[in-house]
Amino acid sequence: MNYFSSDFKLGILGGGQLGKMLLTETRKFDIQTYILDPSDEAPSQFGATKFFHGSLMDFDTVYKFGKMVNLLTIEIENVNLDALDKLEEEGLPVYPSPKTLRLIQNKGRQKDFYVQNNIPTSPHQRFIDLNDLRKSLEKDELEFPFVWKSAQFGYDGNGVKIVRSAIDLMKLPDVECIAEQMVPFKNELAVIIVRSVSGDVKTYPVVEMEFHPEANQVEYVICPARIDEKVAQKATEIALKVSGAFNHVGLLAVEMFQTKNDEILVNEVAPRPHNSGHYSIEASYTSQFENHIRAILDLPLGNTNSKVAGIMVNLVGEEGFSGQVVYENISNIMAIDGVTPHIYGKRETRPFRKMGHVTIVNENMDEARKIAEEVKNSIRVISI
Amino acid sequence: MNYFSSDFKLGILGGGQLGKMLLTETRKFDIQTYILDPSDEAPSQFGATKFFHGSLMDFDTVYKFGKMVNLLTIEIENVNLDALDKLEEEGLPVYPSPKTLRLIQNKGRQKDFYVQNNIPTSPHQRFIDLNDLRKSLEKDELEFPFVWKSAQFGYDGNGVKIVRSAIDLMKLPDVECIAEQMVPFKNELAVIIVRSVSGDVKTYPVVEMEFHPEANQVEYVICPARIDEKVAQKATEIALKVSGAFNHVGLLAVEMFQTKNDEILVNEVAPRPHNSGHYSIEASYTSQFENHIRAILDLPLGNTNSKVAGIMVNLVGEEGFSGQVVYENISNIMAIDGVTPHIYGKRETRPFRKMGHVTIVNENMDEARKIAEEVKNSIRVISI
Repeated sequence: MNYFSSDFKLGILGGGQLGKMLLTETRKFDIQTYILDPSDEAPSQFGATKFFHGSLMDFDTVYKFGKMVNLLTIEIENVNLDALDKLEEEGLPVYPSPKTLRLIQNKGRQKDFYVQNNIPTSPHQRFIDLNDLRKSLEKDELEFPFVWKSAQFGYDGNGVKIVRSAIDLMKLPDVECIAEQMVPFKNELAVIIVRSVSGDVKTYPVVEMEFHPEANQVEYVICPARIDEKVAQKATEIALKVSGAFNHVGLLAVEMFQTKNDEILVNEVAPRPHNSGHYSIEASYTSQFENHIRAILDLPLGNTNSKVAGIMVNLVGEEGFSGQVVYENISNIMAIDGVTPHIYGKRETRPFRKMGHVTIVNENMDEARKIAEEVKNSIRVISI
Repeated sequence: MNYFSSDFKLGILGGGQLGKMLLTETRKFDIQTYILDPSDEAPSQFGATKFFHGSLMDFDTVYKFGKMVNLLTIEIENVNLDALDKLEEEGLPVYPSPKTLRLIQNKGRQKDFYVQNNIPTSPHQRFIDLNDLRKSLEKDELEFPFVWKSAQFGYDGNGVKIVRSAIDLMKLPDVECIAEQMVPFKNELAVIIVRSVSGDVKTYPVVEMEFHPEANQVEYVICPARIDEKVAQKATEIALKVSGAFNHVGLLAVEMFQTKNDEILVNEVAPRPHNSGHYSIEASYTSQFENHIRAILDLPLGNTNSKVAGIMVNLVGEEGFSGQVVYENISNIMAIDGVTPHIYGKRETRPFRKMGHVTIVNENMDEARKIAEEVKNSIRVISI
């Protein structure tokens, strides 16, 4: 198949920052791309061959979009899966497959899948609604505290709550959900696996999320993780097992906990480019975005090793600021060697909105970590 | 000045591959860009905020384009300078300045400038036309062999001829020209200097063009050049002197000869991103394209050091093929670690047309050089 400067068209469902960073690679290879996104101000509106404005959840819109392209991928999981099923039935390659997306879209099904496939994960129970969960508590089949997760549409901390008491329970929405046993962990890790149509597989190094000591918020994604080599190997093996179990095509980011006893438990997966792999643009021989494109087009996968140590800091909207965005002190951080800001292209900031990220690369990890802290303490996403 | 996700508009004259690679950086920073190019199929037609179709040599077209933007830069030298003069007079920042472009556009003026500024260059004579040159030969003020260069619009080997005899002379066009003394050299080197509006300066490492032993064609651009440290220092100092003499803002690529006696002679300059800096996308902490944007916006300059050794191979149209392009064996080269093709996006190949390039990066230069040869011997730019 000839993709380069040809009539071949890659469709991408979703036009956010992940789509935007995928576009950089499709432009580099001169592959035609069609993008569908509901927002007029989608970060991917520039750089695609054609940008289509429409709902990702509407059957007809997604189906018609799919009929215009030669291959379909996603940059967001919440898309109309019935349309993808029909397109796949009709012969369109869809990566990742709607079957995988259906499994992943529902956290209950996703957890069951891990159990069925002997993939280590924290013990969980599924509930069709809040009442179902309450009954389980009454029967002492479930105990406080536990981690409550909405089964659908939860991401980036939305739809996840620690429930310690009946009072906490009252704040939960009445939706399908799961309850997970609380597992004390010492590290949150992630491994990105890339798997091509032909089944070639490569793994990115294990990365580590470093949390703010008080705020319990991820501050830095650090590659490679500063963990024992044996733990890293175990995490990589488990991530490979997950990718294999899904028969996944494209990128799969596997988020995991390293428990106090150095056990690895799979938390959840993202079947697409992932925040934990943004460092790869500057640090890796082949970025996660380029490797996603290579994988779904069944081209040879690129080297996932790192040239240098990489740390990523998210740029999220500061609390108390809404409106036209300003990146305060961005010049200051750009004056530091190895610091690259990525501005996603959202005009309006809101508290905690993901507006961009900054990558810090350095030959020396300790130095990179110091600079990352300087970056974190300097730049602020505020409004005019 | 706030450039990021703001109303600020950067204008770029020219929409070829250099413009396309600049766009990658403006997208990363979410800076609005307007591009002007005469071709409907310009590689930069995607990724700009707005793409305008029009002549770069027409006063009104360039002037009107300039009036729509807040800052103007170029990716090709051959643009209407009178329009740039007027825009600059009216207060628009134009980088590089039309004064510099006027000096550089004419190779006679460029050479005189080096002589005036004590910048080492091979001895030259200027002629208003071919008849003027002939008279000089008759008077024995000029002797065979010499290097003939058209004063205007010569690039990439066009407009350059080695003249050994009266027969060679008959093939020359009747235009303003220069004659340069032939200098036996052992290396062709280049140094890219980046200089910001505030006068901050950084230098990329010296790169080396490796020629095919028989065909006398550049095969590889190699960074860093495999030369003596003292020679590299001398080359860097001379390049800095050139950039300073021009009071240049943005990128300046200085092409030089290393003579048999390790003298450095300036050949010519390009006041923009340059083929000899393409390796920087993968190999450097900050690519030449990002640093050009930083420089003209007066942002702090990025680190010009390399993470790894880099080699660049141009992809030019194979002789005997014209029409819709196919990149033969591109999958094979993508299977090699550290190999990244860049496809510019020209649909039609023609003999010797620049269609793309391939970067090879590796921790080890010898290994990179081996892989570069494998790449060079595998991929072919042909037509369907």
